[in-house]
Amino acid sequence: MECVFSIELPQWTKEYIRQNGEPFSDLEEKMRFVIELSRRNVQEKTGGPFGAAVFEQNSGRLVSIGVNLVTSSGFSAAHAEIVALSLAQKAFSCGRLPNRQDCSFELFSSCQPCAMCLGAIPWSGVASVVCAARDQDARAVGFDEGHKPRRWREGLRQRGIQVAVDVLRKQAAAVLNSYGQQGGQIY
Amino acid sequence: MECVFSIELPQWTKEYIRQNGEPFSDLEEKMRFVIELSRRNVQEKTGGPFGAAVFEQNSGRLVSIGVNLVTSSGFSAAHAEIVALSLAQKAFSCGRLPNRQDCSFELFSSCQPCAMCLGAIPWSGVASVVCAARDQDARAVGFDEGHKPRRWREGLRQRGIQVAVDVLRKQAAAVLNSYGQQGGQIY
Repeated sequence: MECVFSIELPQWTKEYIRQNGEPFSDLEEKMRFVIELSRRNVQEKTGGPFGAAVFEQNSGRLVSIGVNLVTSSGFSAAHAEIVALSLAQKAFSCGRLPNRQDCSFELFSSCQPCAMCLGAIPWSGVASVVCAARDQDARAVGFDEGHKPRRWREGLRQRGIQVAVDVLRKQAAAVLNSYGQQGGQIY
Repeated sequence: MECVFSIELPQWTKEYIRQNGEPFSDLEEKMRFVIELSRRNVQEKTGGPFGAAVFEQNSGRLVSIGVNLVTSSGFSAAHAEIVALSLAQKAFSCGRLPNRQDCSFELFSSCQPCAMCLGAIPWSGVASVVCAARDQDARAVGFDEGHKPRRWREGLRQRGIQVAVDVLRKQAAAVLNSYGQQGGQIY
């Protein structure tokens, strides 16, 4: 019986991070980096059109990245957000990222989180979530975002997690649309 | 930067599976096996009081198990259900478990799924979910189940996923209560 599973970023991400990893001056620069991850993931045929990253809030330092690896890894939980959050937790050897005034973290995602990733966010320790494309942009291409609570943004805010949406939405939606037009696998 | 993460079952589970792994004749026998996983996970100090397993529906064969490994693995996504589902997918080399008349799978969990695990269930491919303790039993001990849609069971059923609850609820709740009384870590 299987007793261990591993999820690994594709090789191309190393060079991508080396060339584009820092510094990040603002919200849009971080999101451009994440949307480009989603685009490259399709181009490199390593998964679906979704990217994510965790940044240290005060410094803007890149902590970890994630791309959707469902088809390439064979794990349905290998969404970009889960991958990025898990790699950030590994970097800090801590199952919950610290959230203090001098050290807190933000999750950027090229699309609003599906029901699973939404549920994962409060457990992760991130202080903030920033999204580009909307649920409906993913649904328009055929992706299923799952059964989310109606007022999910308010739910996160009530837990003290800041939420920003529609940051470079058009650019992220364009990657989703392009994937749909190419007949990319919907899973 | 971290580029891979792994989640591994604790050593004691191997012997536990060897001694208790098969055969399973009915629902309650499977759930007793899963509740005992939750109890042993606390006793062995490898995580919180939650266990899960995936069974092949027609044969009753055990496919994979999971226990809550958040504190021991350092990953907030390492809930029993995510571990069991991922190990089942690894066993079948497939990011979505098959769901055919001749081959389908059921997830047993010692507690109703939190918001993250609930969101993960439709992506996993399981045809059925069977739970023991209720959300409120976990909350009574201090665990946070997250922001779940109000009618989550109906949501799963609308997707064709069968849901059974309260199977050996008292026995599973007793493990949760015992953990709470011992002052077990709440995360």
